[in-house]
Amino acid sequence: MAERPRLAGFSHQGILKYGLVRDGIVDLSARYGARWPSLREVIEAGALVTLAEEAAALPADHALEDITYEIPVPAPEKIICVGVNFPDRNEEYKDGQAAPANPSLFIRFPRSFTGHGRPLVRPPESPQLDYEGEIAIVIGKGGRRIAEADALDHIAALTLCNEGTIRDWVRHAKFNVTQGKNFDATGSIGPWLVPFTDEGQIADIALETRVNGEVRQSDRTGRMIFSFRRIVNYISTFTTLVPGDVIVCGTPTGAGARFDPPVWLKPGDVVEIEAEGIGLLRNTIADEVFRP
Amino acid sequence: MAERPRLAGFSHQGILKYGLVRDGIVDLSARYGARWPSLREVIEAGALVTLAEEAAALPADHALEDITYEIPVPAPEKIICVGVNFPDRNEEYKDGQAAPANPSLFIRFPRSFTGHGRPLVRPPESPQLDYEGEIAIVIGKGGRRIAEADALDHIAALTLCNEGTIRDWVRHAKFNVTQGKNFDATGSIGPWLVPFTDEGQIADIALETRVNGEVRQSDRTGRMIFSFRRIVNYISTFTTLVPGDVIVCGTPTGAGARFDPPVWLKPGDVVEIEAEGIGLLRNTIADEVFRP
Repeated sequence: MAERPRLAGFSHQGILKYGLVRDGIVDLSARYGARWPSLREVIEAGALVTLAEEAAALPADHALEDITYEIPVPAPEKIICVGVNFPDRNEEYKDGQAAPANPSLFIRFPRSFTGHGRPLVRPPESPQLDYEGEIAIVIGKGGRRIAEADALDHIAALTLCNEGTIRDWVRHAKFNVTQGKNFDATGSIGPWLVPFTDEGQIADIALETRVNGEVRQSDRTGRMIFSFRRIVNYISTFTTLVPGDVIVCGTPTGAGARFDPPVWLKPGDVVEIEAEGIGLLRNTIADEVFRP
Repeated sequence: MAERPRLAGFSHQGILKYGLVRDGIVDLSARYGARWPSLREVIEAGALVTLAEEAAALPADHALEDITYEIPVPAPEKIICVGVNFPDRNEEYKDGQAAPANPSLFIRFPRSFTGHGRPLVRPPESPQLDYEGEIAIVIGKGGRRIAEADALDHIAALTLCNEGTIRDWVRHAKFNVTQGKNFDATGSIGPWLVPFTDEGQIADIALETRVNGEVRQSDRTGRMIFSFRRIVNYISTFTTLVPGDVIVCGTPTGAGARFDPPVWLKPGDVVEIEAEGIGLLRNTIADEVFRP
């Protein structure tokens, strides 16, 4: 099988752009930016695959070392994350309950994420920065109450997410994980979008998280409690999905919080999330420069 | 004291606009729309008060019965809601715990809200549509780690929110209230923005919710567990606030879920949220027309 195209959001000399990643990057903003300002509009126009095909023959405009990866869709209307979605991880919540009937969901703002190759930011408020490797789907065709049978037709692309979390802040208040999931730049999305055209791309692929080369999380999407179809169906029950929406589909067991004692990320660490056919999302860690 | 200006988002003949509400509405989009496409950009430019002053002398362009109110800021980057924030309501959660140390927070998408005078939509999935009357603040000057002492300088405007909720869906999954708080058009924001210039506008004002004329919720902001200053300070600890962000500050005791048996909203009901100096947000209820 030929390698699938990879479309990335990036910045070059401070300007936000998008392009096709090959040996270098083909600047698609320069060619299509007036019509489609970002990959969100490309997705909305259903033009992701066509654009990738047209760009395949074009020369690269920038060397990869000259660009900075940004999150692929810069301002999605929604980023919705699925909580506990792998069997062992559900068992980690040892509360005597069986597998849940419905997925737990929470929301992250785009600014809680940074791009591939850039540091996750450890804030001065807590040392408990933790990784969560996940697969994210990007909605193409919008809809409400999407049937499971039709759900895959609504996925435009796949990407990866390090759903980085400030662990003690997810229980900083009585209810909801909002704050621990939304510290600026504590997570990452990328490196790019891979257009989704075939169920085999997600049906049962390996997902792995490594810290400094050591495997910390490793599982297969075939074992997810809530399938991609079910997730799209369930979320669209209450909210209308629109093109560019990102759904982050849950992490395998093995986050740093589960070690005894817990092991948090610290400056100098390198976290890699890898999934078959999608790519490798790599981030370092940096302490935030806090100016009070 | 002269009545404070009121700036609304509205649509007229299907076109999204903003304007000054008086006897009629002064169409500010027609005059300033090229520069500031929505009230979000007006707020970002710090021009809310100036615009209101300039428009005060202009003739009204539309009769109020000819417009449809929209949520004031059509696409804020964030809408963050504070959970339990009034003493009696905390006691309603009879779990033996003292007042919480930090506010519980959850996120709503703009599409979960509709404008003033329009029906809240009861979905076919549940009869448990419930009201929550709240005061919302709109961020003017952005920032991170905003000190309590400076917090009020970051508020551009006040508005009201019916933080309508599908009650059984807030516990549809093991964790987080996301889904019960995000059914499309189950809540409302408005009717308008009142520019914020003086702490007296929020320090200790009455907030009341009525259903079909019957008072269901009634309290004063002076009794909030977490003050407006503390809320801005706390939220900005983890996320950078930007102009147009909306923070919905919590509801008094007396939601329909607290009655025995619970009393849910149904078609034909009229819900009014009123707060001194801000206005009156009024919505009816309608069943969703569900096309499977």
